[in-house]
Amino acid sequence: MASSQREISVSEFFAKNRHLLGFDNPSKALLTTIKEAVDNSLDACEEAGILPEILVEIIQLEEDRFRVVVEDNGPGIVRAQIPNIFGKLLYGSKFHSRRQSRGQQGIGISAAGLYGQMTCGKGPRIWSKTKRGKMHAFEMQMDLSKNKAIITLDEEHSEWHRKEGTRFEIDIEAVYKRGLRSVDDYIKQTAVSNPHAEIRYLAPGLDAHRVYERAVTEVPERADEIKPHPYGVELGELMKMLRDTDSRWLSSFLQEEFCRVGPKVAKDIIKAAGLSERSYPTRIAREDADKLFRAIQKTKISAPPTTCLSPIGEERIEEGLRKECDADFYVTATRPPSVYRGNPFQIEVGIAWGKPNSDQLDVDEQGRIVKSKRKKTTDTEDLLGNADEQVRVLRFANRVPLLFQLSGCGFTKAVMQTAWKNYGLSQSKSSLPVGSAVFFIHMASVWVPFTSEAKEAIAAYPEIIKEVKLALQEAGRKLGVHIRKGKKVSSEFQKRSYIEKYLPHVGIGLQEILNISIEDREEVVEALRETMETTRKI
Amino acid sequence: MASSQREISVSEFFAKNRHLLGFDNPSKALLTTIKEAVDNSLDACEEAGILPEILVEIIQLEEDRFRVVVEDNGPGIVRAQIPNIFGKLLYGSKFHSRRQSRGQQGIGISAAGLYGQMTCGKGPRIWSKTKRGKMHAFEMQMDLSKNKAIITLDEEHSEWHRKEGTRFEIDIEAVYKRGLRSVDDYIKQTAVSNPHAEIRYLAPGLDAHRVYERAVTEVPERADEIKPHPYGVELGELMKMLRDTDSRWLSSFLQEEFCRVGPKVAKDIIKAAGLSERSYPTRIAREDADKLFRAIQKTKISAPPTTCLSPIGEERIEEGLRKECDADFYVTATRPPSVYRGNPFQIEVGIAWGKPNSDQLDVDEQGRIVKSKRKKTTDTEDLLGNADEQVRVLRFANRVPLLFQLSGCGFTKAVMQTAWKNYGLSQSKSSLPVGSAVFFIHMASVWVPFTSEAKEAIAAYPEIIKEVKLALQEAGRKLGVHIRKGKKVSSEFQKRSYIEKYLPHVGIGLQEILNISIEDREEVVEALRETMETTRKI
Repeated sequence: MASSQREISVSEFFAKNRHLLGFDNPSKALLTTIKEAVDNSLDACEEAGILPEILVEIIQLEEDRFRVVVEDNGPGIVRAQIPNIFGKLLYGSKFHSRRQSRGQQGIGISAAGLYGQMTCGKGPRIWSKTKRGKMHAFEMQMDLSKNKAIITLDEEHSEWHRKEGTRFEIDIEAVYKRGLRSVDDYIKQTAVSNPHAEIRYLAPGLDAHRVYERAVTEVPERADEIKPHPYGVELGELMKMLRDTDSRWLSSFLQEEFCRVGPKVAKDIIKAAGLSERSYPTRIAREDADKLFRAIQKTKISAPPTTCLSPIGEERIEEGLRKECDADFYVTATRPPSVYRGNPFQIEVGIAWGKPNSDQLDVDEQGRIVKSKRKKTTDTEDLLGNADEQVRVLRFANRVPLLFQLSGCGFTKAVMQTAWKNYGLSQSKSSLPVGSAVFFIHMASVWVPFTSEAKEAIAAYPEIIKEVKLALQEAGRKLGVHIRKGKKVSSEFQKRSYIEKYLPHVGIGLQEILNISIEDREEVVEALRETMETTRKI
Repeated sequence: MASSQREISVSEFFAKNRHLLGFDNPSKALLTTIKEAVDNSLDACEEAGILPEILVEIIQLEEDRFRVVVEDNGPGIVRAQIPNIFGKLLYGSKFHSRRQSRGQQGIGISAAGLYGQMTCGKGPRIWSKTKRGKMHAFEMQMDLSKNKAIITLDEEHSEWHRKEGTRFEIDIEAVYKRGLRSVDDYIKQTAVSNPHAEIRYLAPGLDAHRVYERAVTEVPERADEIKPHPYGVELGELMKMLRDTDSRWLSSFLQEEFCRVGPKVAKDIIKAAGLSERSYPTRIAREDADKLFRAIQKTKISAPPTTCLSPIGEERIEEGLRKECDADFYVTATRPPSVYRGNPFQIEVGIAWGKPNSDQLDVDEQGRIVKSKRKKTTDTEDLLGNADEQVRVLRFANRVPLLFQLSGCGFTKAVMQTAWKNYGLSQSKSSLPVGSAVFFIHMASVWVPFTSEAKEAIAAYPEIIKEVKLALQEAGRKLGVHIRKGKKVSSEFQKRSYIEKYLPHVGIGLQEILNISIEDREEVVEALRETMETTRKI
């Protein structure tokens, strides 16, 4: 028994459990592959202050096999890092840094390569060029038991069609579908949440690249990296930090290793722990570390700085919504930054409401007032649904659209827990409200608590739910005012329609009773109409 | 930017993402810790053919800190393996073997140790003794960046209170709760699905150990290990197997590395691929491997052997249900083994229905027929719910109860998709049926497709859903017969109650009309009653 005990490599683990990474089935695998590559491209461009130009291509090779191409105008990757970034799971720069980025695990893009290798037998192909370097072309296979790339092609070229950038290609087993939760849908939503990016997209069935032009021409401000906040650190981590620090004294340790700790706060913490400011951090035993840990919880420390966050901004959210939803009314709301488990985050929401002229009423053959009929939306051309359907919720984390696990997402819980009847929407208990509307919810954070490695839904931390609800309520109140105004107009319109319809009959009745001429009748009817319109002011 | 790129250790990854492993919050962390330790203990006992005796203790240390103790009479662990098994994530014997076991990832127990270290600053403590060896006591800390144990205590003792066995202790931040999805609930359900195990359980608030006696005294038969089935292997894996094999010829490769491939099947596959039986496996290039892969899919190959499975057995499921649910009717059903993605699995179900005498009807003060009232069940003393509540679904994978993610589980989908109205239960669309019942569903498999590393729910593979539905339908039909009989009895009973109630009034009426004596009246009433009872045969 003992002899068969051995290490399991992280590649073997995720190859066998690839549904954990979003490769559950061929259709989702296609989306996940593209999503991971586009996330990396956008992150690379923004970190280098470059306005992103992203090319996405899906090319059908066989019935169940497709080639995925994602190319960017980013800063390129230095030669030595290429095999690790694309051929090793759990590798990268983002996991250890406290700064907002799309990627955070160092798994995604290499998992896509692994999936390609498992299903089509070929690893990823990479072309990359930095501004001053040559272009490097790589082909690789992943050694599963060692979690390491085996390089099968390594070439250098002095010419390339880009000055700088990276191109990633992989062949995968996949199914290409349209509609909700498709790659098409993902690309559209990415354009909404990244109005500074230009995306050129080619998929089976398209004659030419579909181009999503950029709506704004500034790169989002680069988010700062921050030190950990004392409230977000657990005893075990604190002990490790004490062991590893270069700081000489306990007081300087607290000030140098954490954000928001100055001499005064450090003193307060150390006093509350009953320790000395002149203790050597590396010699603090578990019991004293525990006292320090408890003291931190009891000391008042300001919230972490929020320069590590790069929200989208209300104006850009509205522009994004306007570009993709032909709605009657738009409203946005932004919360001030907040904190969960020591991690700063910020919530932004937007609502696009109602189709233009959807309030228009008709009078039918039998003289009944009816709503003007609109044809059913089945494609993704317009994100707005119909008035009798539940609202559509678009969820974003650090600008990345989340397409799966809607019901398991903390954002969805927040929408359901908001009392939408107060704002004029109908809503069943514990359900999404009903209406022709798109709800846009974005969380910007240095660390997004996803419910799985596939990064499909946000864990329901109470602090996050609360902030989303507050943002929705703010937008909801403005929406409520609009809806009530609309209802008033439509009720006035309804009354007026009745008048239009029945005044002639009143005229005929009066003519018969009073025995007057047709001309007199018309005059009376006209006088009545004028009186009523003046009174009603419509 | 390039300089900050680096490897992320799997311990660091899961320490930061520990909600993926079931350590989302202090209450669930307590359950997960105990579950992982008990899984390991039961696996160890069964592999060694030992009837398990498991001790589980929860001791409160501080308001938010608890000590968890799990001790077994298993075969013990050899000294050299102890630090790896408890101090290294992704280590074990079960991941690479195709045999049914509770553990399968090599993560669980070391993750519990890691959680303890992060929240309370102390790593796990282990005592273990093999039959012929000495007892070894270990204390360790996990080095997160190296995913390796740092041993802080390593002692040898010649005396211990057990001849063989293992004791695991860890201090963790936790909350102890009762009720649904509590540790109490988990222990009770584990006793149901493991009737061969004796469990002694101590928790805060209990004066003495609560003992779950064993109901059967044979150890479940040890499941065999099998080779991969050709249908379950993907192109990438096939290529790796071709590269790594010791077989000389392609034909012998197929016969030696896979199950269910004899000379005839090997010949068929190779012919369909257009290759030669005498090819060297290690020299087969991707294109030829792909032809082989496609040929395998087209060749008829028998299903994998099922000796790798160890189902619980209908008799034991019923015993387990009888022990923990005081029901009116029990029924079980077992499906023949089936296969998903090359993995053999088998579904067993059991239903405990209705509380005893729950059909009894009373006649109230006003002479109306009423159902006898039962008090609301709020504790977990009896697993049966009330007649107006949704049935309770107990889910098990390789005998391990699954307590979380009910709605995200394939088993739950299968229950909802079954037409329970056919079997006399009321059921709303896409919901669980309603009734005082417990549904027991067990999947035995060499590889359980969990939806997350926390092993809380089963992925909705169509093959699995189908088998669960077929098993439920079989049990449902028998339940339906019972319910219809019960309904008939209760309707007879209702009529009889009316007779009992109104016959005296009929007597009084007759007495008045016919002007007879009280004795005559009683006689008439008695005659009427006899006649009616004879006619109705009740």
